[in-house]
Amino acid sequence: MGKAVREVRENQVRIADAFWSPMQEKVIDVVIPFQEKVLNDEVPGVEKSHAIENFRIAAGLSQGEFYGMVFQDSDVAKWLEGVAYSLVIKPDSELETRADKIIEIIEKAQQADGYLDTYFIIKEPEHRWQNLHECHELYCAGHMMEAAAAFYSVTGKDKLLHVVERLADHIIGRFGPEDDKEQGIPGHQEVEIGLMKLYHVTGKEKYKDMARYFLEERGKNPNYFYEEKIKRGWQHWGQYSIDRLDVRYSQAHQTIYEQKEAVGHAVRALYMYTAMADLAGTDGDERLYRACRTLWDNIVNQKMYITGGIGGNPEGEAFAGNYELPNDMAYAETCASIAMVFFAHHMLEIEMDGAYADIIEKELYNSTISGMQLDGKRYFYVNPLESEPGVSGEIFGYRHALSERPGWYACACCPPNLIRLITSLGKYCWSESDSAVYSHLMIGQKAELEKADITIRTGYPWKGEAEYLVEPKTDEEFTIAIHIPYYVDPAGKETSLTVNGEQMELHRLMKNGYAYITRKWNTGDTVVIHFPMNVRKVYANQHVREDAGCVALMRGPVVYCFEGVDNGELLQSLRIPKELNAIAHTCEKGILKGNVLLRMEGIRMVSGMELYSENPPVKEKAALTAIPYYAWANRGESQMRVWMLEE
Amino acid sequence: MGKAVREVRENQVRIADAFWSPMQEKVIDVVIPFQEKVLNDEVPGVEKSHAIENFRIAAGLSQGEFYGMVFQDSDVAKWLEGVAYSLVIKPDSELETRADKIIEIIEKAQQADGYLDTYFIIKEPEHRWQNLHECHELYCAGHMMEAAAAFYSVTGKDKLLHVVERLADHIIGRFGPEDDKEQGIPGHQEVEIGLMKLYHVTGKEKYKDMARYFLEERGKNPNYFYEEKIKRGWQHWGQYSIDRLDVRYSQAHQTIYEQKEAVGHAVRALYMYTAMADLAGTDGDERLYRACRTLWDNIVNQKMYITGGIGGNPEGEAFAGNYELPNDMAYAETCASIAMVFFAHHMLEIEMDGAYADIIEKELYNSTISGMQLDGKRYFYVNPLESEPGVSGEIFGYRHALSERPGWYACACCPPNLIRLITSLGKYCWSESDSAVYSHLMIGQKAELEKADITIRTGYPWKGEAEYLVEPKTDEEFTIAIHIPYYVDPAGKETSLTVNGEQMELHRLMKNGYAYITRKWNTGDTVVIHFPMNVRKVYANQHVREDAGCVALMRGPVVYCFEGVDNGELLQSLRIPKELNAIAHTCEKGILKGNVLLRMEGIRMVSGMELYSENPPVKEKAALTAIPYYAWANRGESQMRVWMLEE
Repeated sequence: MGKAVREVRENQVRIADAFWSPMQEKVIDVVIPFQEKVLNDEVPGVEKSHAIENFRIAAGLSQGEFYGMVFQDSDVAKWLEGVAYSLVIKPDSELETRADKIIEIIEKAQQADGYLDTYFIIKEPEHRWQNLHECHELYCAGHMMEAAAAFYSVTGKDKLLHVVERLADHIIGRFGPEDDKEQGIPGHQEVEIGLMKLYHVTGKEKYKDMARYFLEERGKNPNYFYEEKIKRGWQHWGQYSIDRLDVRYSQAHQTIYEQKEAVGHAVRALYMYTAMADLAGTDGDERLYRACRTLWDNIVNQKMYITGGIGGNPEGEAFAGNYELPNDMAYAETCASIAMVFFAHHMLEIEMDGAYADIIEKELYNSTISGMQLDGKRYFYVNPLESEPGVSGEIFGYRHALSERPGWYACACCPPNLIRLITSLGKYCWSESDSAVYSHLMIGQKAELEKADITIRTGYPWKGEAEYLVEPKTDEEFTIAIHIPYYVDPAGKETSLTVNGEQMELHRLMKNGYAYITRKWNTGDTVVIHFPMNVRKVYANQHVREDAGCVALMRGPVVYCFEGVDNGELLQSLRIPKELNAIAHTCEKGILKGNVLLRMEGIRMVSGMELYSENPPVKEKAALTAIPYYAWANRGESQMRVWMLEE
Repeated sequence: MGKAVREVRENQVRIADAFWSPMQEKVIDVVIPFQEKVLNDEVPGVEKSHAIENFRIAAGLSQGEFYGMVFQDSDVAKWLEGVAYSLVIKPDSELETRADKIIEIIEKAQQADGYLDTYFIIKEPEHRWQNLHECHELYCAGHMMEAAAAFYSVTGKDKLLHVVERLADHIIGRFGPEDDKEQGIPGHQEVEIGLMKLYHVTGKEKYKDMARYFLEERGKNPNYFYEEKIKRGWQHWGQYSIDRLDVRYSQAHQTIYEQKEAVGHAVRALYMYTAMADLAGTDGDERLYRACRTLWDNIVNQKMYITGGIGGNPEGEAFAGNYELPNDMAYAETCASIAMVFFAHHMLEIEMDGAYADIIEKELYNSTISGMQLDGKRYFYVNPLESEPGVSGEIFGYRHALSERPGWYACACCPPNLIRLITSLGKYCWSESDSAVYSHLMIGQKAELEKADITIRTGYPWKGEAEYLVEPKTDEEFTIAIHIPYYVDPAGKETSLTVNGEQMELHRLMKNGYAYITRKWNTGDTVVIHFPMNVRKVYANQHVREDAGCVALMRGPVVYCFEGVDNGELLQSLRIPKELNAIAHTCEKGILKGNVLLRMEGIRMVSGMELYSENPPVKEKAALTAIPYYAWANRGESQMRVWMLEE
């Protein structure tokens, strides 16, 4: 085995899509400039960042103290990565110049031996590399490597790449299996991803080897962090209330091959799985792929919200037990869903299985973008599936699950993660092998692939239709394999796939979720897909205590929710009728304009004033409206539920 | 207005009841001796108490340091109070002698000026009365007053009574409205109850006046605790994680007349309401009674679990918002339910309204005694209505809600509170006025009242039948008023009340939940009541998010629950059928022997392996068993639910 396909880079794709283009524009026009101002401490009223100033001070260009989280540097790195992708979508020479200048500062901040982390350079130079558990030096390094790889890949400029290569070499010089090196592992996984990306752009095996080292060293000594603590003999600040020596929290309790259940801090876990899957594919490592698949199956079959949200335990922003998926107490961090896209993408590169692409879709249309307000100005870390004003964000158990998006965070991980996901959307759309082009996502675009330029026109996710216009670059026969989402019946009467107007038997083309069309392609060939966009009632497994008796509504990849603003008070008193008769319609005005909403006749249970009564509640008809989950909490504070009781 | 009735004392009643007598025996034979050993540090393996040793040290009879909670003294007081009541039920001269000896130690520990609190006597004599907010000196004083009143009332011995009178006089000398006194209020209400009891046994107005002072001073200055903190200039230990300056927590945010909603720490609140109601009745204070009624209505109509549990917010062991009654996260402290009995009892003394007696019943048969394992050896503080092994007691949000009763607690408030409730059960059975005898509870017993001796024989709560055998002590006509529980239809076909076999028209006798039978009574007169004991499906108000779509089963006053041990896994997949066909049967063996259990044909929803699926779950028949809620968690750890989804 090995990677079945080659990665398609973000700069091969221009998104031109009614759903995603405005989102990319918002990210580029609103979020990136806003975050730049935040990083430069130019936004009054939001938590001071100081992140760029930290680099200036470390570079000797400014005087002052370090300020911010110990991982403040990573905010700059994530911003730079997002900027790189944004330059593909919307070239902006001034922005690029400003990014270049920041990179110059970073370069100057780097120490002679390659070390780079402003917290330790400024504040505790004698303590570097002594607290891998809590101090995020390797985490920051990883993000800087990702930024450098992206910046180089898009602009061809290699200044930051050289910085991170020196940094990586410094790390390789310090950590490793050799007797004269330290056998260390990062407290927060991320450097493994960065090293793999560095390998992909430079081709230098040593970076991949180092990624493998960090991955395989993990869990060999479950007491590593404890021993590190004893060894350093000094206390670091206690930022977290949870037991930091709970090694399951950072997935260091077992080796990656022994871990069968996704546990601990969800983002750490998923960054690790992402690097594992990248390495498994890159090296054709069957054993490692099986390890990834075991963890994947556990997440997807036992630990994922219907929205794609990951992490049912707010304490430690962590996975909860199997099937423990509380809706109002959900953590479901935006970053975890984004990381699930990364993980899925690498799994897909190993095996063209539509199940991976389906999860990418689930994440993209639901619990990633729910993290951003529709105007791009406010963000959720936590994406609950039920929200109750007066409770959510306010009382014990629910404080983390806000009912409205706040402006910015001291720990600003999710917004920049959203930037880089949305600006790099193109690369999740395709893979290419020697014999085939694989389309994973129906997103309007023009893609410049090796074998063909392909233009997609689609009304997805609102309409079940897409047209692929093919301009081949080769005379040879090749395959275009198009992912057909899991909810489409390829043999269904309303489903069709035509090539140049000629009806194909779609179900005969299907293999593992993809329609394989192999032929000699001519310029102007079109593949047109149609499938019905029914509103689907979805039931959770009986093991899921919190969803018992409930249904959720989906249409295409979009999960719907009900808000008080549309449906009046007491959403818990509403019932979805057994015979659902939902009408989908496009919202024509207001902030939800362009979204397909669902209108249906439902039921409202009405009871008397008593707290408890033997009189059963009485049914009344109620006109109900559901909106796409990702768009919740954009019209003021009100109740919200995804899972609704069924009649 | 005023107290409509006179209190009946615990020593006027001998319980002889199939349900309650074994419980009293357990408390007397198991719990009181066990707690005595704990107080004397003679039980290996449980949290050291040191409570009696603290008194010895304070008395100069022993050397050593104070150990335990700042309110450790109250454990001794509560034990003494329970012992006093137990001596009525089962005289035990050795136990009484041991109690006398402890009282001697307490007397010796008391300071010359009347002060009594071992923490401050031993540890910080210079700091007494400086931290009313956190240090519980008045709380401990209140419990000692209750103990003294009970001990005096039962045994006639007044040593402890004199101790607490000196203590009360010391308190009166220090606190009050006068300019030369401090305008203080207790952080944890309780002294108000103690002072009222002291008033009732001594008739001295000053104690009642002081109770009124503490009640009416409360909330006049919402900043009192904050100002006290500034004034004392020293920090006390931080035992609690919540913001101790949140004055709603201790009901000090408004005056008692301004408070319209039950908020904050539930036990503090209910101890305050209890004293308020006692004072309102004692003084015939209409305004104060209205204040009590407002708070009562808020609790009963918006903030009470169906089990009688009080406190939906584990943070601060507190009331949550209206209708916010999470089942698996419930706090529902045993002590709060016990205190609700106290409150209801005083409300009942003012107004013979069956609604108060119904709440006493609800508490007695459900969320008070659920605090005790059936063998009397282990205790719950927290009485959730849903429990999930692996989650309950273990993970964030649920750590407080254990799924099995632990042995003893460092903060040992609930077990001794249960002791005193169960041993003093007799006094909740009756009230007496000039013209009437009121029976509040159908509990088998012989009562020696002023106007008659009355023997009750009953199979309650399992059977809807009771026989009252009357031996009048007067030739004059008087009324026997018998509380008919709210769920009984007095006009129902299967309901009957006979006097000496003669059928009465029960519904014509009814007034506010009581059947009034007025006549000249002759020795041997019997009143026999029969009513059907149907299994009732109860629905929660639509405002209660957590009970939506669910029913709970009740039979008589008993709330039922479903446990995994009887019903297999995944209780959430079970459905109670619309047409309930439950068969009540008496359990013949095992730990639940004697309890009436419910057997019914229900439904189990079965779904496939997928986490989410468009296939609706399939219905299968399932034989279901429900057991009395109070008896849950007596057969090992398994799931438990009170609220079950309805078909």
